[in-house]
Amino acid sequence: MRVDDRIPDELRPLIINRHFTKYAPGSVLIQAGNTKVICTASVEESVPPHIKNTGEGWVTAEYSLLPSSTPVRVPRESVRGKVGGRTHEIQRLIGRSLRSVMDLALLKERTIWIDCDVIQADGGTRTAAITGSYVALMDAIRWLKSKDLIKENPVVNSVAAVSVGVVNGVVLLDLCYAEDAAAQVDMNVVMTGDGKFIELQGTGEEYAFDDEQLAAMLRMAKKGISEIVEIQKKALEIPG
Amino acid sequence: MRVDDRIPDELRPLIINRHFTKYAPGSVLIQAGNTKVICTASVEESVPPHIKNTGEGWVTAEYSLLPSSTPVRVPRESVRGKVGGRTHEIQRLIGRSLRSVMDLALLKERTIWIDCDVIQADGGTRTAAITGSYVALMDAIRWLKSKDLIKENPVVNSVAAVSVGVVNGVVLLDLCYAEDAAAQVDMNVVMTGDGKFIELQGTGEEYAFDDEQLAAMLRMAKKGISEIVEIQKKALEIPG
Amino acid sequence: MRVDDRIPDELRPLIINRHFTKYAPGSVLIQAGNTKVICTASVEESVPPHIKNTGEGWVTAEYSLLPSSTPVRVPRESVRGKVGGRTHEIQRLIGRSLRSVMDLALLKERTIWIDCDVIQADGGTRTAAITGSYVALMDAIRWLKSKDLIKENPVVNSVAAVSVGVVNGVVLLDLCYAEDAAAQVDMNVVMTGDGKFIELQGTGEEYAFDDEQLAAMLRMAKKGISEIVEIQKKALEIPG
Amino acid sequence: MRVDDRIPDELRPLIINRHFTKYAPGSVLIQAGNTKVICTASVEESVPPHIKNTGEGWVTAEYSLLPSSTPVRVPRESVRGKVGGRTHEIQRLIGRSLRSVMDLALLKERTIWIDCDVIQADGGTRTAAITGSYVALMDAIRWLKSKDLIKENPVVNSVAAVSVGVVNGVVLLDLCYAEDAAAQVDMNVVMTGDGKFIELQGTGEEYAFDDEQLAAMLRMAKKGISEIVEIQKKALEIPG
Amino acid sequence: MRVDDRIPDELRPLIINRHFTKYAPGSVLIQAGNTKVICTASVEESVPPHIKNTGEGWVTAEYSLLPSSTPVRVPRESVRGKVGGRTHEIQRLIGRSLRSVMDLALLKERTIWIDCDVIQADGGTRTAAITGSYVALMDAIRWLKSKDLIKENPVVNSVAAVSVGVVNGVVLLDLCYAEDAAAQVDMNVVMTGDGKFIELQGTGEEYAFDDEQLAAMLRMAKKGISEIVEIQKKALEIPG
Amino acid sequence: MRVDDRIPDELRPLIINRHFTKYAPGSVLIQAGNTKVICTASVEESVPPHIKNTGEGWVTAEYSLLPSSTPVRVPRESVRGKVGGRTHEIQRLIGRSLRSVMDLALLKERTIWIDCDVIQADGGTRTAAITGSYVALMDAIRWLKSKDLIKENPVVNSVAAVSVGVVNGVVLLDLCYAEDAAAQVDMNVVMTGDGKFIELQGTGEEYAFDDEQLAAMLRMAKKGISEIVEIQKKALEIPG
Repeated sequence: MRVDDRIPDELRPLIINRHFTKYAPGSVLIQAGNTKVICTASVEESVPPHIKNTGEGWVTAEYSLLPSSTPVRVPRESVRGKVGGRTHEIQRLIGRSLRSVMDLALLKERTIWIDCDVIQADGGTRTAAITGSYVALMDAIRWLKSKDLIKENPVVNSVAAVSVGVVNGVVLLDLCYAEDAAAQVDMNVVMTGDGKFIELQGTGEEYAFDDEQLAAMLRMAKKGISEIVEIQKKALEIPG
Repeated sequence: MRVDDRIPDELRPLIINRHFTKYAPGSVLIQAGNTKVICTASVEESVPPHIKNTGEGWVTAEYSLLPSSTPVRVPRESVRGKVGGRTHEIQRLIGRSLRSVMDLALLKERTIWIDCDVIQADGGTRTAAITGSYVALMDAIRWLKSKDLIKENPVVNSVAAVSVGVVNGVVLLDLCYAEDAAAQVDMNVVMTGDGKFIELQGTGEEYAFDDEQLAAMLRMAKKGISEIVEIQKKALEIPG
Repeated sequence: MRVDDRIPDELRPLIINRHFTKYAPGSVLIQAGNTKVICTASVEESVPPHIKNTGEGWVTAEYSLLPSSTPVRVPRESVRGKVGGRTHEIQRLIGRSLRSVMDLALLKERTIWIDCDVIQADGGTRTAAITGSYVALMDAIRWLKSKDLIKENPVVNSVAAVSVGVVNGVVLLDLCYAEDAAAQVDMNVVMTGDGKFIELQGTGEEYAFDDEQLAAMLRMAKKGISEIVEIQKKALEIPG
Repeated sequence: MRVDDRIPDELRPLIINRHFTKYAPGSVLIQAGNTKVICTASVEESVPPHIKNTGEGWVTAEYSLLPSSTPVRVPRESVRGKVGGRTHEIQRLIGRSLRSVMDLALLKERTIWIDCDVIQADGGTRTAAITGSYVALMDAIRWLKSKDLIKENPVVNSVAAVSVGVVNGVVLLDLCYAEDAAAQVDMNVVMTGDGKFIELQGTGEEYAFDDEQLAAMLRMAKKGISEIVEIQKKALEIPG
Repeated sequence: MRVDDRIPDELRPLIINRHFTKYAPGSVLIQAGNTKVICTASVEESVPPHIKNTGEGWVTAEYSLLPSSTPVRVPRESVRGKVGGRTHEIQRLIGRSLRSVMDLALLKERTIWIDCDVIQADGGTRTAAITGSYVALMDAIRWLKSKDLIKENPVVNSVAAVSVGVVNGVVLLDLCYAEDAAAQVDMNVVMTGDGKFIELQGTGEEYAFDDEQLAAMLRMAKKGISEIVEIQKKALEIPG
Repeated sequence: MRVDDRIPDELRPLIINRHFTKYAPGSVLIQAGNTKVICTASVEESVPPHIKNTGEGWVTAEYSLLPSSTPVRVPRESVRGKVGGRTHEIQRLIGRSLRSVMDLALLKERTIWIDCDVIQADGGTRTAAITGSYVALMDAIRWLKSKDLIKENPVVNSVAAVSVGVVNGVVLLDLCYAEDAAAQVDMNVVMTGDGKFIELQGTGEEYAFDDEQLAAMLRMAKKGISEIVEIQKKALEIPG
């Protein structure tokens, strides 16, 4: 049995609240067990220099842990004067994942900023951020359509993410922090709504894994993601 | 009538939720109308160099706007690589206000970090941050006592804050953003629970104000703060 | 009696020397007792982005302590790589105070840079900086008129500042550093030449003050500022 | 046929020169086709704070592109004042990969710094850096043993890395830059000498890949790595 | 004739005022024509890490242009967030020059901070800074002796500096800014009181100079420095 | 006899390899004994703001020590977040030296970036960098001519550099690190191919030198540079 009494291939309770804050066109509070992330999608009517005049739009993500989101307070990156390596890695992953399901030409020359601010961190913040950001992105797209700023939906597929891992030799789904800290393998899987891989990041922690373990982790990730996709769909069924 | 149909000396609805997040000993979500701030109090068993070996503790505050907290997205200070002037000013004010009601010797050599993260900004974020931080601070103090880390309560008075101002020549209480942007005078008042001044910051915006206007603003601030103090008390009545 | 033998409502000797350096159109050395600040006003024929194409001008201030200005050497902010919170607070105050007495449309699309460099610090550097900067600003305005760059004087009122405070329960005017360090209340007051408030910043240092003390401080500030206004006028009587 | 006339599962010519520079105990120039990376291993007799007093050692990596390493000059990160996201990601990957094959307790309280400086970049710089750093690390270990600073070899397995990808629907091994820029899937695989996974990072570039493609890429990566492992062994056969 | 009517080997009027500010043990205002620099010497009872426990002291210098010191305002380095290349070069030169005439063991484990703040810049600021700093240093040494903190004078020789150059093919002494900007060769010479070289920095500005020109410049520099040495001596004759 | 068995006026073996890397139009590996520097010249079709629209080009240099280039690892300046004083000084010297032999109008509005990356440092890195950069610059010029981007050669003279110094009272040519560390005087001399001075930087290290020593050092520098000029010529004789 796991620290929180789940069976190995069981997700934590996943709740997605839309319209969490008022000003961003997309604003989602996603809760995966004790992990809570505010994911917002804001629209800016300009694009970064490297795609100016291509007629295409851009989606970029920023990620941050609130100082009090963890049991031991995390220093603010603004105070340290720079964004750390882990943060860079995560926000690049989120942006890449969302862009991979979009036809950016349909977005036209504008940027959607995804902001993922973790208010409570109990493992799996990056995968929760991806899952929640997809919903916030969809709300921003609906808002753009309602304003007649775009005609066609540039999001051609849905995207969801989950972590899997090996803890004490056992393959587990959706690791909480205590499991993650003890994991021999930690793997983040990002998939489309129709079951293809967008991103796969598996890391042995002073440990190497074999083909069989890899196969078991991928099977479990697929199962988890298919459940998450359903919850995303439900959340988006409510109009507005 | 005001933009949100209040009368001049009427506060916005003020809601204080304790235990908003799980890991910090004090964690408050304060809502003043559409302004929403997460105020947390974390305890660190060390003090900054300038008070080391004095036997006293320290309380320090950090303040941040989430990028999506405003109608136009605010760039992250971590990305800009430095904390801006306005942020510095606000976090110094919050820290000073809380320290002014404390006997830091009773806290002993530890630091309480106050983190104020604005998730929705509609004016009055700094005063809401002070009002909410006091409640988070009290919860951290209770936690310290429950752990037998301190014996006596180092907080010797309560503290609350409100804004007042002059808009189109009329003195108003608790300005929302639209009012603040149009204000001729903007004044933040921080007071103790027993009605004394801790901090007074009044600024004419391309405008100078006279004694009479000052007196009217101070009267209104006192009225507002006495109401806020009651709401703080209520919130803290629930044990735990 | 005070540490420097003044009576409670007595200003320190205040000397304002214009044309202290050669290249800036306005250059003032202001001395308030042992506090000495070089205040210069330089003109730049452009404006910051946020007011571009509004037809208005801008006045902005920077403040710095020379490392050797205090009994214990202050590290340079350029070496620390960032401007500190106190500096930010002060330079925002100086800029705001000067802008509040100006019709920026008459200045046209140009910036006046106010630089306040403290060469000796004995308390009251920010108020001396405001008082001196007003005189430097006036010299820059005269220079602009002499060059036919502006027609009308955009400075519609004079501005001066002074500190007041409560030390050992006694209300004092124009605190020197020793008094400031021991003060229970420290208040900076910025007023127009005709006796209205521009800015009021009162802070209890682990102390709260009541209405009566506030009234006494404001009375004393007004008296001090009326004397400072006369010294500013005298200094500006000399043409050139 | 590929841009450089290779067949799909063919590695680029891989050359590993040891003792490339004189001062670092391990210094390797690795060339994978036109990609050239200097990988050095330096020893420091102290450890970072987070493992102090654990009795364990540490291995950390830094990665940098020389400005002239690419067809269009890359600005120096020292001049930009910060290390970019891509660099962070790569150097974290290198450090993690090497640590995963080490028993850090056997290294004792010292740090091995791995520096990977790319002097010519034609794709696959991060995998070349890992492959070359392993050899530099081994030389540093030999040096430590020759100085009697350690008794047992803390490196318990070898490590090598290669990229695979999907280009125009075809699975390819060891992508050069032109292929990488056009890839639909880009995957970096880090494995131990005995064929287990240490790290797996697969990314769809505006593309999602299925199980079959994943299986094909993994097969090809294993083939490539087994060849690389042989070249590493050869290079290390020469003593000194 | 030169722009300011001097003959080629004529110094600008050189005035050295000691005790310019109050708190630093050494505080000099040096004026070389229109160039004015505040040079102070402050004492700190600790040394930088690299000489800790050597029993020796340290002298280090910082240099800064006040923003208003030049006809076109110079941005503050604290605002730009870093110290520029020219500043680095100058402050390293000042520190090195002073240390070269000192027996740092006699200073014991303390640091003398030299701060050179240019309030008006008309060429030759670095040489004026060296010349003035020597006098400030001597005052700090006298102060240390008066406090019985040192017994012997650690300054074993005097140091002075001057610029020479070639302008329109003519060798000139002590260039003002207009001359410096037009110079083909610009050379800064730092010498001991007894006529030996400490530092020689000659630069052709898109120009190369021959042996003869070098000899003429050195002759002229020596003449100038011997005059400066006399002025330093005079300034230091007054006790206290 | 010297540490490496040279006679006093003997250069270290000097080897200049062109076309060291592939992408930069000029790419040189220069070796002066154990000192090894990669000097590249890259072309950018734009100029820095201060010479925009002058019709002239620009040459600028950057210099960096690879962390493993020295016996004790040097921290990366990108990690420290800023370029140090020594680096600034050296890269300014390299840029100035190259520009002094160029007619920048003939280069037209483009920038040549010189990058000097030291892979092994045994003294004299800055002079080797200048000597090698001249050759890389010439290759970039040839490339520009081959592309018909310029018609005339903007490099009007050659440039080379060497260090001289006084060690234990003896004047030596081309100091290695061990000599440099023990030197009483350290002088870097940059000259044109026809024997004129471009730059002269002599520094007494807690030592002052007299006219005779200066003359001896200059004589020896000239001899060394005339030999270096020959090696540069030889290296450039090979076309392409």
